[in-house]
Amino acid sequence: MIYLDYAATTPVDKKVLQKMLPFFDKNFANASSIHRPGQLAQEAVELAQKIIAQSLNCQPHEVIFTSGATESNNLVFQGIFKALAADSKFKNQKLHFITSNIEHHCVLDSLAALQKESPQRIQITYLKVNSQGLINPEKLKKAIQKNTVLVSIMFVNNEIGSVQPIEKIGRLIASVRKKRNKNNLPLYFHSDAAQAFSYFDCDTRKLNLDLVTLSAHKIYGPKGVGALAVKTGVRLTPMQYGGGHQRGLRSGTLNVSGIIGMGEAVNLAQKQRKDNTQKITALRDYFIAQIEKQIPGAKLNGPRKKRSPNNINFSFAGAEGESIVLLLSQKGIAVSTGSACSAESLESSHVQLAIHPKNHLSAHSSIRFSLGKFTTKQELATTVKVLKNVLKKLRKTSKDIKV
Amino acid sequence: MIYLDYAATTPVDKKVLQKMLPFFDKNFANASSIHRPGQLAQEAVELAQKIIAQSLNCQPHEVIFTSGATESNNLVFQGIFKALAADSKFKNQKLHFITSNIEHHCVLDSLAALQKESPQRIQITYLKVNSQGLINPEKLKKAIQKNTVLVSIMFVNNEIGSVQPIEKIGRLIASVRKKRNKNNLPLYFHSDAAQAFSYFDCDTRKLNLDLVTLSAHKIYGPKGVGALAVKTGVRLTPMQYGGGHQRGLRSGTLNVSGIIGMGEAVNLAQKQRKDNTQKITALRDYFIAQIEKQIPGAKLNGPRKKRSPNNINFSFAGAEGESIVLLLSQKGIAVSTGSACSAESLESSHVQLAIHPKNHLSAHSSIRFSLGKFTTKQELATTVKVLKNVLKKLRKTSKDIKV
Repeated sequence: MIYLDYAATTPVDKKVLQKMLPFFDKNFANASSIHRPGQLAQEAVELAQKIIAQSLNCQPHEVIFTSGATESNNLVFQGIFKALAADSKFKNQKLHFITSNIEHHCVLDSLAALQKESPQRIQITYLKVNSQGLINPEKLKKAIQKNTVLVSIMFVNNEIGSVQPIEKIGRLIASVRKKRNKNNLPLYFHSDAAQAFSYFDCDTRKLNLDLVTLSAHKIYGPKGVGALAVKTGVRLTPMQYGGGHQRGLRSGTLNVSGIIGMGEAVNLAQKQRKDNTQKITALRDYFIAQIEKQIPGAKLNGPRKKRSPNNINFSFAGAEGESIVLLLSQKGIAVSTGSACSAESLESSHVQLAIHPKNHLSAHSSIRFSLGKFTTKQELATTVKVLKNVLKKLRKTSKDIKV
Repeated sequence: MIYLDYAATTPVDKKVLQKMLPFFDKNFANASSIHRPGQLAQEAVELAQKIIAQSLNCQPHEVIFTSGATESNNLVFQGIFKALAADSKFKNQKLHFITSNIEHHCVLDSLAALQKESPQRIQITYLKVNSQGLINPEKLKKAIQKNTVLVSIMFVNNEIGSVQPIEKIGRLIASVRKKRNKNNLPLYFHSDAAQAFSYFDCDTRKLNLDLVTLSAHKIYGPKGVGALAVKTGVRLTPMQYGGGHQRGLRSGTLNVSGIIGMGEAVNLAQKQRKDNTQKITALRDYFIAQIEKQIPGAKLNGPRKKRSPNNINFSFAGAEGESIVLLLSQKGIAVSTGSACSAESLESSHVQLAIHPKNHLSAHSSIRFSLGKFTTKQELATTVKVLKNVLKKLRKTSKDIKV
């Protein structure tokens, strides 16, 4: 199998699995137990927390473990909304959230649920990206109001790989915040860095980030575990209660083996970031060049420059995305039409529609190839060859060939 | 190490780990992906779902995977409350919940949060248990009102092992429900069976259960994964949004390896239930007899008969529970004062206070020994011997010896 769907999920790195193994059946105790085995588990959890905190340049206690990026992102929106909406000081104010129109479903759906539940207390601005899938920081600045409490912009888009100007946005938010009276509503900056962490420095101080979402299974760690960095002072109401684990912000028995795995995944990602970025960027550029050279009617979606090293997204005129995925799969190549999370839905990707507002066809024929640290040039060469044949076959039967 | 804290968590069974391993780095795909590797992951998830559904006598699609029992229980309360509170048909009604005063913190805290958030829409009855920690079904029946929407009673108490009359309660609720008009509020029955599943049949039809909570790490499966069985028709608003996984009830990338592990853990628990119950019950009775024979001032907490096979809970007059745990730990024996989840808190256990309402001292000196399938008679004999010495030492220094 040629696996080109690393943005959907990654294999667990052997080094990560090795670190996890003892915590299944040897050091298996509950990290909340006060006996020695419990304390050993707790110490291992704290080490993982420290590794992640160092990588984000924040304090270890500011790192909360969750079941994944979806939970982390939901916790950000629900948690901040509930904490501020319950404060009688702000009872006559609508809480304003700013995000983009190409965020992950878990951001958009989480906000939509709050909007439905409490329409009288929430106001949401969905910033439009340009045709490259990029936010304009000046437009973002203009969107900030007196009652804006959170700006949430994903670091790297999961479908088209656009890299947002997080550092610029962070500076801009910090400057607005400085002018706010301390009795007023707070203004926080959050970024979902699930797709970014392997390739970009996520230093919360440098980027002025108050909250950062990470996912283990996108960086060669296990599924079912994620993190949320929450700067001290950020007001957040928990989503799930009981036991008071993790400073009361996220109760539930700690997933010790998962957390250890995430710690090691972060450790490796940090160490390998420079080399992987260099290697994978070269592979990406080779692949884009080969497709553009060898395959007629291929149109790159997303930016050419401000693009994640591992993302390639093309629309192939005259062929349906889903059919391409299925035929490639038959030939042993795994790619996707867009986000795996919405693979079961037949709707056009909201990200593609955001960058091609008038072109449903282009959205329907888009394919995401996402590379990873085990991808080879040979695999990409083979993929171009197979793709050529697959497209020939599909275009023969297509009624609307526009090549 | 002699591990007598199986109620806090269990080691992952080697057979469970073997089933999980391929899903970390070989069959690692995202179960939502439509390519072949994704579909293989999805098929494995469906098999686990089927195993769990069979064990609960419900439909596979009625089994939802969560991050653990805490999330499952929170989803029950938040989900049912939100779904019914948002229904304009019931907008002038308070929603009534019935539970017991010895439930797990995640039940009590979840309800307390709803009470705080929406005091005008919720009413909660906390049924008192008797001195054995048992619910009186007749009292429960009397507590049911026209606006009661949920009765939630844990199957086996995690601290004192009392086994509630779930079948009786289920029949009783079913009979009340029959008389309700279909336009009225629904009446659901939920049980947290996290501590019960290894030893008791959790057949949802036989027990008339609408919702059941399970946890993998209490039954020799991995931490970070649990399940909630939700009968078709039960109205439930999700806690976390995005992607619409699991019929929209619980979005988030499926924790494939964890789910596979949970499937196998449930499979083994079912197969071994009869043998383990027999073996562990005998060990429990041996241990209780030895303590009562050899250790003066030992008082059994919880019922003698309606007691989980693996639970032993004693108060030792003249000694602090925490000190006993720490000294036993030094001697290589792992036990706990009560629930691991509240180990970090210095408050008396709410379960002990519920059965000894006037005796804080007894609550403060209680120790839980919880047995598992790897426990041996020799380990228990050694524990009694060491405990004797530990208590001698502690009682020498105690100011309030009442032995």
